[in-house]
Amino acid sequence: MSGLIGADDRPMREGADEAAVFDCLEPPKARALVMAGVECFADLGFDGTTTRDIAERVDLSPAAVYVHFPSKADLLFTISKLGHESALQTLEAAAASEPPGTERIGAMISAFAAWHARNRRLAKVVQYELDAIPPERRPELNRMRRRFETVFESTIEEGIEANLLTAPDVAGAAMAILSLCIDVARWYSPQGPRSPESLGRFYADLLLRMLNAAPATA
Amino acid sequence: MSGLIGADDRPMREGADEAAVFDCLEPPKARALVMAGVECFADLGFDGTTTRDIAERVDLSPAAVYVHFPSKADLLFTISKLGHESALQTLEAAAASEPPGTERIGAMISAFAAWHARNRRLAKVVQYELDAIPPERRPELNRMRRRFETVFESTIEEGIEANLLTAPDVAGAAMAILSLCIDVARWYSPQGPRSPESLGRFYADLLLRMLNAAPATA
Repeated sequence: MSGLIGADDRPMREGADEAAVFDCLEPPKARALVMAGVECFADLGFDGTTTRDIAERVDLSPAAVYVHFPSKADLLFTISKLGHESALQTLEAAAASEPPGTERIGAMISAFAAWHARNRRLAKVVQYELDAIPPERRPELNRMRRRFETVFESTIEEGIEANLLTAPDVAGAAMAILSLCIDVARWYSPQGPRSPESLGRFYADLLLRMLNAAPATA
Repeated sequence: MSGLIGADDRPMREGADEAAVFDCLEPPKARALVMAGVECFADLGFDGTTTRDIAERVDLSPAAVYVHFPSKADLLFTISKLGHESALQTLEAAAASEPPGTERIGAMISAFAAWHARNRRLAKVVQYELDAIPPERRPELNRMRRRFETVFESTIEEGIEANLLTAPDVAGAAMAILSLCIDVARWYSPQGPRSPESLGRFYADLLLRMLNAAPATA
């Protein structure tokens, strides 16, 4: 994107962060299948991917998928759940790291946008394949999705009460912040001029202007 | 999305706008196949869709696809080209409808966001399936995609020169505006509380705050 020109101290770590999201998964074969699932679903879509595609990417037989997951849709649910949890932990850690008001909302925007740049393939699977999640699994994800909204809404409200922010519609502003950060996963390229962290800071500045606050880095 | 609460005068026209984008296509069977292609690619992804899926949706044989399009990828290119053209025409018409500055950029944001709400399945195919476009067809789309950026950039610059807008990074601000409007296609539901037009006005107000201008509807 020509719009994001700037020099950066970008570390070389394409894919490393996405692997970290799944560190908790055992056994290693299940973890390998989940990571292969992220790559396949991001490249081919859920409907365009077979269990054979996933298994072959890590030199396993298609039957190996069913040893660890009841179905392709359950494998997707595992990806989606861990992806949502990782993004939510990142957001809540950023919120806890700064005092209420401008600094807190800026840190949250910055961390949430950077997460979507760093984990863009995972984020695409999480956001674009919700319709393929088994219906009985959706309430759990929906509770987490609602949590993203309430964390942003309550932080904006805190800032408004402290006369540090303004918003014509708190829920609408929170939704727009989430939307802009999520869309990073669609267009971000690690070959582009901005690191995830630099993009995060840029978005925090832009969106703090939207919330009528002074830029966080000024 | 809970953030977008508001009463609306929403017309009943799900799908009608997307059909209008393809009105220029002849013969009618080619038009029907393209519209079926939008539905299939939006639901199943390009890789998850067969030419049989597309043909069956309009009661034609798979061979009928090849009468009108050399390949599934060429059918996708036709969808993408007409989709880009429609969005660009909408944007340029909005730009021409208002004087430079706050009104013009507000009208552009409003129209562009509303286009993505009205044509959300088409917009998803246009934005999410770029990798499946045949390489020799990409330069034509890339020229149009660059045009979206320059139209927003030049309008913001006009506003800055007239002391009506400010932006720390014109190209970055234009990119964020495009991104927020494009992401509407991911989450918008016609069953939700906002009409495409109401969402467009809301986004224009939010983003004019980002550009440090007074709300267009104030």
